[in-house]
Amino acid sequence: MPKSTLTHQLLSSHLVSGKLVAGTEIGLRIDQTLTQDATGTLVMLELEAMGLGRAQTDVSVQYVDHNLLQEDNKNPDDHLFLEGAAQRFGLWFSRPGNGVSHPLHQERFGKPGATLLGSDSHTCAAGAIGMLAIGAGGLEVAMAIAGQPFYVRMPQVWNVQLEGQLPDWVSAKDIILEMLRRHDVKGAVGWVLEYSGGGLQNLSAMDRHVIANMGAELGATASVFPSDDEVQRFLARQGRASDWIEIKADAGATYDRHELIELDKLEPLIAKPSSPGNVVPVRDVAGQPIYQAYVGSSANPGYRDFAMVAEMIRDHRVADGVSLDINPTSRQILQNLARDGHILTLLRSGARLHQAGCNGCIGMGQAPATNRISLRTVPRNFPGRSGTREDNVYLVSPETATASAIAGKITDPRDTDAAYPSIRQPENPIIDTEQFSAPPTYPPAVAAELIKGPNIQSLPESQPLPSRLETMVMLTVGNDISTDEIMPAGARVLPFRSNVSRIAEFVYIDVDPSYVTRAQQHDGVHAIVGGTNYGQGSSREHAAIAPHFLGLRLVIAESYARIHLQNLVNFGVLPLTVENACKQFQEGDVLVIDHPGDQLDAGHEIKIENKTRQQQIIGQHQLSDRQSEILKAGGLIPWMRQRSSNQSPEPTAGNLLQ
Amino acid sequence: MPKSTLTHQLLSSHLVSGKLVAGTEIGLRIDQTLTQDATGTLVMLELEAMGLGRAQTDVSVQYVDHNLLQEDNKNPDDHLFLEGAAQRFGLWFSRPGNGVSHPLHQERFGKPGATLLGSDSHTCAAGAIGMLAIGAGGLEVAMAIAGQPFYVRMPQVWNVQLEGQLPDWVSAKDIILEMLRRHDVKGAVGWVLEYSGGGLQNLSAMDRHVIANMGAELGATASVFPSDDEVQRFLARQGRASDWIEIKADAGATYDRHELIELDKLEPLIAKPSSPGNVVPVRDVAGQPIYQAYVGSSANPGYRDFAMVAEMIRDHRVADGVSLDINPTSRQILQNLARDGHILTLLRSGARLHQAGCNGCIGMGQAPATNRISLRTVPRNFPGRSGTREDNVYLVSPETATASAIAGKITDPRDTDAAYPSIRQPENPIIDTEQFSAPPTYPPAVAAELIKGPNIQSLPESQPLPSRLETMVMLTVGNDISTDEIMPAGARVLPFRSNVSRIAEFVYIDVDPSYVTRAQQHDGVHAIVGGTNYGQGSSREHAAIAPHFLGLRLVIAESYARIHLQNLVNFGVLPLTVENACKQFQEGDVLVIDHPGDQLDAGHEIKIENKTRQQQIIGQHQLSDRQSEILKAGGLIPWMRQRSSNQSPEPTAGNLLQ
Repeated sequence: MPKSTLTHQLLSSHLVSGKLVAGTEIGLRIDQTLTQDATGTLVMLELEAMGLGRAQTDVSVQYVDHNLLQEDNKNPDDHLFLEGAAQRFGLWFSRPGNGVSHPLHQERFGKPGATLLGSDSHTCAAGAIGMLAIGAGGLEVAMAIAGQPFYVRMPQVWNVQLEGQLPDWVSAKDIILEMLRRHDVKGAVGWVLEYSGGGLQNLSAMDRHVIANMGAELGATASVFPSDDEVQRFLARQGRASDWIEIKADAGATYDRHELIELDKLEPLIAKPSSPGNVVPVRDVAGQPIYQAYVGSSANPGYRDFAMVAEMIRDHRVADGVSLDINPTSRQILQNLARDGHILTLLRSGARLHQAGCNGCIGMGQAPATNRISLRTVPRNFPGRSGTREDNVYLVSPETATASAIAGKITDPRDTDAAYPSIRQPENPIIDTEQFSAPPTYPPAVAAELIKGPNIQSLPESQPLPSRLETMVMLTVGNDISTDEIMPAGARVLPFRSNVSRIAEFVYIDVDPSYVTRAQQHDGVHAIVGGTNYGQGSSREHAAIAPHFLGLRLVIAESYARIHLQNLVNFGVLPLTVENACKQFQEGDVLVIDHPGDQLDAGHEIKIENKTRQQQIIGQHQLSDRQSEILKAGGLIPWMRQRSSNQSPEPTAGNLLQ
Repeated sequence: MPKSTLTHQLLSSHLVSGKLVAGTEIGLRIDQTLTQDATGTLVMLELEAMGLGRAQTDVSVQYVDHNLLQEDNKNPDDHLFLEGAAQRFGLWFSRPGNGVSHPLHQERFGKPGATLLGSDSHTCAAGAIGMLAIGAGGLEVAMAIAGQPFYVRMPQVWNVQLEGQLPDWVSAKDIILEMLRRHDVKGAVGWVLEYSGGGLQNLSAMDRHVIANMGAELGATASVFPSDDEVQRFLARQGRASDWIEIKADAGATYDRHELIELDKLEPLIAKPSSPGNVVPVRDVAGQPIYQAYVGSSANPGYRDFAMVAEMIRDHRVADGVSLDINPTSRQILQNLARDGHILTLLRSGARLHQAGCNGCIGMGQAPATNRISLRTVPRNFPGRSGTREDNVYLVSPETATASAIAGKITDPRDTDAAYPSIRQPENPIIDTEQFSAPPTYPPAVAAELIKGPNIQSLPESQPLPSRLETMVMLTVGNDISTDEIMPAGARVLPFRSNVSRIAEFVYIDVDPSYVTRAQQHDGVHAIVGGTNYGQGSSREHAAIAPHFLGLRLVIAESYARIHLQNLVNFGVLPLTVENACKQFQEGDVLVIDHPGDQLDAGHEIKIENKTRQQQIIGQHQLSDRQSEILKAGGLIPWMRQRSSNQSPEPTAGNLLQ
């Protein structure tokens, strides 16, 4: 037997297609899924459209942690919809206010050796306890819930060896900030980071969560830690000792890359605005006055992270003019902090206590004042993510946040005259599982209702490719069009993420405000013609769903960004490439493709007839057979439905409730 | 000496003009003011425009309690502006998260025998401790801060005699709901409600706050309670024993109206959607499933209100599908609840704990789902006030809210099988004054800076009436135009309340969307012509300020709503009446008034020349000499500045920093 990395062990045990050769596509069986409310409503609408009977995973959990502000009916209506959908599809449901998905999942459901796919980029945090945990787009998670494999390019494996012990005032956050200092964002794209070494013995499971969580900021596919005695203790404290197994790399396993971090040599670090990779020692920027210190989020979620703040501030007060915002990660942690007196200490110091959830970490409240410095223990400080366009956000450890809140200015915690507090995990923690609703027993007597408020609409149906595809060119655009240009985000648009017909009104609004109206008024379907790198940037699915809703069936471009091309296929839009596309077509041209399905089957060329100019153009495509089948069916969801009814003439768990 | 009511004693000791004859205008000296953040930014901009040196009151406090969500820079920028303004003008400042103005003011600054004017309709709550406390518009409060009297129509006095003792499960909220059941909203318009009787001895100062607070819902000018032993104990517990004086009605004082409430006969009451006056016994609507129970706000602010919830729910849990939202009134109360274990009890029961503040009571978060029942201890359930357009909000006591949260449906707390918990006020409460910033010592070395974020703009300057007023008729409208039509509210407009130039873009937008552009493009000032009852509805000042900013100098209507007419005068717009105004003028007509100031001095007729139609029309006005002087100066603020510089050739506290 060759010596195997932990990563390879996790991959091998879940491999359903492909080979573990870096760069090639592999298919993985998914044991668990995680969805949160901001992405979950669309996932549930996709499951509805697929006609899913019941989740095919071991555990799937729908959390509500992002949209807790409830300024109007939209958030609470989404909550009710998700609760009903969890019952309908056989998911666990974590109620609003129960806390942030990532630490909750690790505490309640995380299982060493299992795979977890989540529609949130910080899903990777569960790697802290020996899981292979990966963030992905909503439809990919929907497919996993429906029992389909997850396809990913086989990563390389990068061993990060932690040795020694952290000095006082330096904690887990500083380790991942050190990784970001060394490698910057994107430094681990295409890699799994596999942690090992003697330094692990002093890092708790929640400390490891901090490090695995922010692997997302390095661009890593996943981060994995071994499941060792500490993970055993962690699960035992949660009343889940039986879920523990040991899992670790074979001695002498070889890696594609190796790196050493000597913990004794680390110091408090800080990521300056406006990138998590913009890391310097805290002392380099010390002394600047701050407006806010913010503690919480999945990047510093543990009991110790909050207890540390309380112990540090016990004999002090928050400086005048500073807002110290405490965002408990979960109700359970909040209860333990309250029982142990830490909440009262925090309140007496002047801290503001907020409800448990993601909150300001994703720009839902607690935005800082214009241009004022905000120190946050959160994972990201992209410009404007705080909610304030001209923000000034620094990423820090709880120790640095607290020292700075007391001093009123950026402060290296080593420069306080206090002794470093020693924080113990509670030996008998309060366990609160009451805010989780279990899935119903199966089969249910009656299918649970999907409760749709006025802003929640089912996914529009899509049709198979017709035998003759006639489209009009509705829009021509240039090179490097991003999905932000196709489908803007932000507060004016995001509340409509469960409402395709409404969000479609914003498609291309900043590029050509007349596009939507023209598409709506056009009697028939249409095409868009673009340049190179069409659909770059964010992976958002709405950049395909919403134009499809407006009648888009064909895109012709010189080249495509990978994820957007997949999204177009997933939602039934044919993506072709043509050299100098923009010069060959004009708005208003009527294009006809005869028997597009047969042409897809026949090869990589598609004949396009430009009726307006009486020209024939040859378009290219590089679609796989699987992608062609999906397109012919009208998209991934109708394709799934087709397969499901072909494969299962008898009712099964997968299709009983269709 | 005639026997005097408590109300007359309070009025007499502060009377600076007029006589205590019901219905006539009286001027009162104001000892204290209260502003909150939602109205305070404009008040501070008005003080800036007046050139105020320093507040002339005994105590003026700027609270931040409404806009705590901080979704973007606007809220926190407002907070910084208000903090700077408090320093600049010599006000106390209560920091964001410190809590709701009304209970905080009662605890920290309230003084039996004093007057309080506040730019919040629930300012009247401080009547609980023998103050004369009145809510008013922002500019009236600004005038009071500048040392000017407050003018009000002398109310009648209505004695409400409380006798006996409340049964178990019935509390102060049910007393004011009983008043609303008997008299409905508007039932006390033009009255002061003066409470007395043996029943008071079992009502704490915070219980009385509940009753005085919701006097606003009856339309009362004020509600007053005697300052008795209970008020003495209340102030002593806050460390303010020396601020107590006894003040009560003379024995045998006569009232304009008398009413008896026998407390023993009351039962739990509930105000159904969507009016506080829609009151029935809880048992009449019991059994309906609820979505939310919400505890907090200035209408149930006391320690006992939250401790009651905790004690009732100690051995229970919140029902599945119910959100129990706990909104602590202040940091101080939250700390006492945490110290005494109540917070942990609430968390263990499943309650969601929010930051201290007004929050969902004014639609800033915690909105209910569409059409679902929300039981709230707040003072108002107007349609949509919760943030959800199709809401379903009931007003209740904490006892009814909790019994219903446990049962999952509307429940009379008497129908639980529990014993009624006995709640004691903490004998040694935690006192937290650290989140108040004191005004600077005077005179300051340097004037504090006003910190204006990008959304905060100084009030536009206004000019004295010119010797020749030439206007073009920009808009003609019909009868009963409301201030909501002139200046809409809601989430799209309210964030711009500190930004007159930006909010002006919404003037008349739902009536004539071209008005703003036409006014902006017009080279000169303009007039609007209306019908009867022009400017009815809400008292909002922006309905005068914003059109003035766009160039409005003259309104001609058949008649006016009282408050809007005063607002037009206050902001320098001449309001004239003309019979059949709409038929006599058309859009585009150019109108000239020669020497309008002289004409105002000369009598009640103003000659208007319609140059376009070569007609002469006589307009009327009923302005007082004082109002004419204000108009000639260009509005109340320039008039104030004029008087200030005329009266005080030497620098004084009032104008030193001009």
